[in-house]
Amino acid sequence: MEPFDVYIIGCGSANPTQKHRPACQILSTRGKLFMVDCGEGTQTRMAQRGLSMQRVGHIFISHAHADHCLGLPGLICTMSLLGRTSQLHIHAPQELETFLQSSIQLFCPNLEFEVLFHAVNTTIHQMVHEDRSIEVWSLPLHHRVPCCGYLFREKEGPRHIRRDIIDMYEIPISQINNIKAGMDWTQDDGTVIPNERLTTPPSPTRSYAYCSDTTPLPKLVPMIQDVDLLFHEATFDAENEIRARQTYHSTTIEAAKIALQAHVGKLCIGHYSSRMRDEKKMLVEAQSIFPNTILSDEGQRISI
Amino acid sequence: MEPFDVYIIGCGSANPTQKHRPACQILSTRGKLFMVDCGEGTQTRMAQRGLSMQRVGHIFISHAHADHCLGLPGLICTMSLLGRTSQLHIHAPQELETFLQSSIQLFCPNLEFEVLFHAVNTTIHQMVHEDRSIEVWSLPLHHRVPCCGYLFREKEGPRHIRRDIIDMYEIPISQINNIKAGMDWTQDDGTVIPNERLTTPPSPTRSYAYCSDTTPLPKLVPMIQDVDLLFHEATFDAENEIRARQTYHSTTIEAAKIALQAHVGKLCIGHYSSRMRDEKKMLVEAQSIFPNTILSDEGQRISI
Repeated sequence: MEPFDVYIIGCGSANPTQKHRPACQILSTRGKLFMVDCGEGTQTRMAQRGLSMQRVGHIFISHAHADHCLGLPGLICTMSLLGRTSQLHIHAPQELETFLQSSIQLFCPNLEFEVLFHAVNTTIHQMVHEDRSIEVWSLPLHHRVPCCGYLFREKEGPRHIRRDIIDMYEIPISQINNIKAGMDWTQDDGTVIPNERLTTPPSPTRSYAYCSDTTPLPKLVPMIQDVDLLFHEATFDAENEIRARQTYHSTTIEAAKIALQAHVGKLCIGHYSSRMRDEKKMLVEAQSIFPNTILSDEGQRISI
Repeated sequence: MEPFDVYIIGCGSANPTQKHRPACQILSTRGKLFMVDCGEGTQTRMAQRGLSMQRVGHIFISHAHADHCLGLPGLICTMSLLGRTSQLHIHAPQELETFLQSSIQLFCPNLEFEVLFHAVNTTIHQMVHEDRSIEVWSLPLHHRVPCCGYLFREKEGPRHIRRDIIDMYEIPISQINNIKAGMDWTQDDGTVIPNERLTTPPSPTRSYAYCSDTTPLPKLVPMIQDVDLLFHEATFDAENEIRARQTYHSTTIEAAKIALQAHVGKLCIGHYSSRMRDEKKMLVEAQSIFPNTILSDEGQRISI
């Protein structure tokens, strides 16, 4: 099966700590990298992780806070230095466009590739990108500024050919794509061989949702129902619920309740406040509600 | 003696490597930090080094290239998050002002401290800042965009009192500052005690020059004559002289020749190109011209 891996590049919040870096995650699948958020220092940490920035075609930004997007100008300049010619698509709230264009104008005015800015409406749940194998949907969140998460969902692929049966019926190669697409096979004598005999079902589709930064949002639940991996911010532990409300963030318990209600496969928490010293305690709290919870950490790869 | 320490925060060039980070150096003296250049990730590396960003009152930027200034917006946002109220002065080429102001407007519009932008004329050698104990001078450089280095020079302090002699002549405390300033002492009987008998000379003044990015520039020599520490970029080794010319940078040999001609105390080289794999070779090259050369490296502190 093709890899469908999420790399945690940074999982801290605004105030830098010894341990964590500002927000960035990367989904790697079918040779492509999809970046979500791009905090300061992302390009350096990609180099350390051995991830090629030239494989990034689309970047999705949740909101225009410094710790989620200040890595963009440097990343684009370095892509240019390294000779990039292919388009780069940036999906982000409208607020970011002027900053992005003026940064490019000042720091790398002679780009030999196009940077295409796509303003995302953060208030609605809609498909913001698709290619042959994946769909990306916005997830409206509730933060101090316009903000949305992103849901990545594989499209259903073709059915798998049963080579031995195909050979037995001497089906010509020209018909293979039709059969993968679900067609039956009619023999010369008129006998119909049903597709279910010739193929096995497509690989299961996989999905990953990124929800940061946000207050806990019950209306999110149907949009992320049954996703394989949910990253949900848990900036604070349970005892800092008041601070979470004041800053439009979530606690461990709140993130885990969303995961439970949405019946996700796995919950990954992060975007830790610099005030949080005891991540193990945060993990225990979240697991008390949703046992299949893990802590995010820089350098981590989560395979789905 | 008061410390006069230079911290190397980043000494790579534009293309990030596993090893080096973009440009930033910090002079620490008398409880104040003076920052020179502020590449992406500076705030994180200061946290790692245990250097408080709130002690930075003045930042000096050499030129508006991404690897020398993309750390500024994040640094300013975090200063704000941490409750800063004292002014921050940024001395930089005019090109940078719009980027800086628009970044602040987008990412931290409610600053509770003033950010004062001082446009530096990069074509002349002039004093750009002074306080009681230090002067900072611009050093015109030659790069692809307007660019200057900075020279930090301690002011001469007061002469040191010889406590035993002062006591012997029973000189009142009210006269101490006059004597430190160089005055003689006249006894009741009219005898004049010359200041040289009452004091020892002031501590030697110390100086540090930062020259990056630039082609080798002989006209720089008189401006940095006899400085204690010269940081001079050596983006390339000697065999890449042609590439150095094309990109308006210097080689090891060229940096060392400037140091030799200016008769500096110590030369520190850096701003390594990502193409340079063998820094020991670069050191040997520079030392063949100017023996008291060292390599810069992240985390280093050079005490003067």
